Amino acid sequence: MNLALLFPADLTAENRAQLSGRRARHWHEVTGAQVGDNVPVGLLNGPIGCGRVLAITSQSVDLELEFSGTAPEPLPLTLILALPRPKMLRRVLQTVAAMGVKKIVLLNSYKVEKSFWQTPWLKPEAIREQLILGLEQARDTLMPDVILEPRFKPFVEDRLAALAGTSRRLVAHPGTSDPCPQAIQEPVTLCIGPEGGFIPYEVEKLVDQGFRSVHLGSRILRVENAVPVLLGRLFDSCSF
Amino acid sequence: MNLALLFPADLTAENRAQLSGRRARHWHEVTGAQVGDNVPVGLLNGPIGCGRVLAITSQSVDLELEFSGTAPEPLPLTLILALPRPKMLRRVLQTVAAMGVKKIVLLNSYKVEKSFWQTPWLKPEAIREQLILGLEQARDTLMPDVILEPRFKPFVEDRLAALAGTSRRLVAHPGTSDPCPQAIQEPVTLCIGPEGGFIPYEVEKLVDQGFRSVHLGSRILRVENAVPVLLGRLFDSCSF
Repeated sequence: MNLALLFPADLTAENRAQLSGRRARHWHEVTGAQVGDNVPVGLLNGPIGCGRVLAITSQSVDLELEFSGTAPEPLPLTLILALPRPKMLRRVLQTVAAMGVKKIVLLNSYKVEKSFWQTPWLKPEAIREQLILGLEQARDTLMPDVILEPRFKPFVEDRLAALAGTSRRLVAHPGTSDPCPQAIQEPVTLCIGPEGGFIPYEVEKLVDQGFRSVHLGSRILRVENAVPVLLGRLFDSCSF
Repeated sequence: MNLALLFPADLTAENRAQLSGRRARHWHEVTGAQVGDNVPVGLLNGPIGCGRVLAITSQSVDLELEFSGTAPEPLPLTLILALPRPKMLRRVLQTVAAMGVKKIVLLNSYKVEKSFWQTPWLKPEAIREQLILGLEQARDTLMPDVILEPRFKPFVEDRLAALAGTSRRLVAHPGTSDPCPQAIQEPVTLCIGPEGGFIPYEVEKLVDQGFRSVHLGSRILRVENAVPVLLGRLFDSCSF
């Protein structure tokens, strides 16, 4: 936790907050913060700064807040991800939140196992928990928007064009002929398939919507690695 | 498992192998392979190809082998990584093996917890197990070399120069002024610090050895994400 994200309910006065639970335990037990220390904080969808510890126990921390900076720039990316298996979903949500993705669509695909849609990790509060961990890792405050699309065809035919707008449309697809472009300067909508990839019908539907197939070379990477490789390649490092 | 790595002990004749354990269970239970099916295989440090199933149970698989291709090109990278915490170590070893890194140094650093060096996951057979999983993911056969360096100063002063040779020397260090270069065409030796980063003394020692500090932007990424982002940025996608 490189920053604690503060929510409206944490604020006890204009420049005061009281935190409990995981965040209090982290500072009390992991960092050993003491009264008078400054700890890094950020206000949900707002500025970042520091909190001076006024009181601290393993149950709660009282802070005097001073905001002095802004969250890092969002990545100009809409990420459409075939729903990964639950264990990987949690890590991928943390990763993309840490890397500054602000719009994430979790999409069905032929090779997504039906049971993945039943996981409790898809409940809004569970998704939010992983996103918070990612934001705290990267010292960001802007909560990403996650949309669940459990049906491929109506999403691609009816909603994808409006979502992608004028952005560059790419689908990561191993075995295609074009390598993934590097350091591009425009917004991107990027689709990433499931383990085993999108089936040809799905790639065709995406190509019909103006998506270009690109690859990362001959190695097959797990989605948890393919996502940071693709994002690291597509965007200039100043975007991170 | 996108390919099963075969070891000399698996070979029962020139073009025959019998596999047991995890690999047999995978094909029998996960893929449901049957007699006559072809499954992807690779020979340790050798060619890739396929194996025709001659007999299969949950305990063992007999294969008739035919090799027809070569493993993907190695990445021209020596990766020097401050020893991550054990849970992350396992994932990072799989990731770097999957991405084609063939020389990995696990290095001590001031902020590496002493206890990390005691983990059973650093035993040669445990390291090898994670590397095999990474190779199988990426359909590679060339086993990486992992070197443990539990003392920072003698490694950097006495052995690093010979290890880095004429390669480009980079150290990933958040907060430095130069962004990480992109799509470079030469061999690289890359150092990545621990959670919390290298301390200034360590960065100075690396700079003394010709390493240039580069950053990935203002976001602080976990090492499991920083590694694929750095590798995706440094090397052309045809290298993967």
